[in-house]
Amino acid sequence: MTTLIKRLSIVGAGPGDPDLITLKGMKTLESADVVLYDALANEALLEYVPETAVKVFVGKRAGMHYCQQREINRMIVNYAENFGHVVRLKGGDPYVFGRGHEELEYAAAHGIPTEYVPGISSAMAVPGLGGIPLTKRGVNESFWVVTGTLKDHSTAKDLSFAAQSSATVIILMGMKKLPEIVSLFEQYRGKDEAVAIIQDGSKESERSIVGDLGGILDIQQHEQLTAPAIIVIGEVVKEKGKALGHMLAERALVP
Amino acid sequence: MTTLIKRLSIVGAGPGDPDLITLKGMKTLESADVVLYDALANEALLEYVPETAVKVFVGKRAGMHYCQQREINRMIVNYAENFGHVVRLKGGDPYVFGRGHEELEYAAAHGIPTEYVPGISSAMAVPGLGGIPLTKRGVNESFWVVTGTLKDHSTAKDLSFAAQSSATVIILMGMKKLPEIVSLFEQYRGKDEAVAIIQDGSKESERSIVGDLGGILDIQQHEQLTAPAIIVIGEVVKEKGKALGHMLAERALVP
Repeated sequence: MTTLIKRLSIVGAGPGDPDLITLKGMKTLESADVVLYDALANEALLEYVPETAVKVFVGKRAGMHYCQQREINRMIVNYAENFGHVVRLKGGDPYVFGRGHEELEYAAAHGIPTEYVPGISSAMAVPGLGGIPLTKRGVNESFWVVTGTLKDHSTAKDLSFAAQSSATVIILMGMKKLPEIVSLFEQYRGKDEAVAIIQDGSKESERSIVGDLGGILDIQQHEQLTAPAIIVIGEVVKEKGKALGHMLAERALVP
Repeated sequence: MTTLIKRLSIVGAGPGDPDLITLKGMKTLESADVVLYDALANEALLEYVPETAVKVFVGKRAGMHYCQQREINRMIVNYAENFGHVVRLKGGDPYVFGRGHEELEYAAAHGIPTEYVPGISSAMAVPGLGGIPLTKRGVNESFWVVTGTLKDHSTAKDLSFAAQSSATVIILMGMKKLPEIVSLFEQYRGKDEAVAIIQDGSKESERSIVGDLGGILDIQQHEQLTAPAIIVIGEVVKEKGKALGHMLAERALVP
């Protein structure tokens, strides 16, 4: 009988393309006894998990809501105690709007050694894969990632500071508040400020629209992009297409 | 004779640990005819490059300066035309303060198909690997990544908006201006606001200090961390250590 070594690894799956997980993430999956995965983490990644491992879907499709986060926490501890190495696979990076730290903290409080394996956040890679660099010398030198839910008063206030700055602003979960967001930024940056909206970033179903604050609502009215989508506001949006990019490369390269 | 297919892939190497490159980054290196790498990109990653490929160091240790960016641009085009697939390997993510987009744009203007392969930015992963989540529900909901060089007037102004917000603020290249940065944030957030400085993040030589704005300069005076280091300011810094984390896990797990 081997001794059971309980532990929790919380792994970022990246923005959608299964090849955008890290080598460390892949190796961690290979040593899993249990994997808890959710809607955002690409199911193709389960191919790295040993066949004998327990695979549990804990995502939103199954009707998970706020109160069930506690249930996930308890599952992590129970599985670690009974099976050993639990891997919690999460879309993007576990520490970017991901509640990853809450899960680590809960496990640690129950005496389970924990490990964090970073992933590529959609907030960073989706604009880049869409041809928009987050920073560009001579254009701007900072970027701000914020949720657009505006539930929290301080978040809404933060968005107003962001609008006043010269930062590239990346807004996650902002589609429902798009008119308010556009109006806020227009107030400080004017109607000519560039904006892009990218839906299903890094996936085959990716769609995007580009325009200025003055016209983006009309374009959105016509194109009807839906959540999950990322809104990018800033001069760097104008870089989109300058380097031709991915489509050209992909067309030329298919063997 | 095979036809030469010229192209440029610009690949993010991640924050330092060679296992934090993506699978796509590794596969791209495997198909390289030429690799141009710099000081920040981990040399261990060259093991994925075919033996027959040309490997060229273009980093700062060789005395590269601003004017030589043009030289790198020309090298990319020349190598692509003469050898085929050029991989430009850059530390972190190529689009985060990396000039990656400039290189893509130059190559594209010379008719070379280009591809961007994102990497994990130090700005994101280094705090996380040090036990600091960039966001935490109930603590804060946004983060701002900015350079601390303060050369540019608009950047200095942005830093002032950042200080007024509730965002986690991650400052790269800010060590020389540490007293000014601390003073600015203290003005808006008070001397009790938490701050961490992490040197050589994700490497074995990693060192960090944690404190509050009122005391961090004294701690730094004593510990003398040096660049490259990342400054993190915000309530989330207090989460550091709560989930015990990496050291415990590593000690328990060595096979």
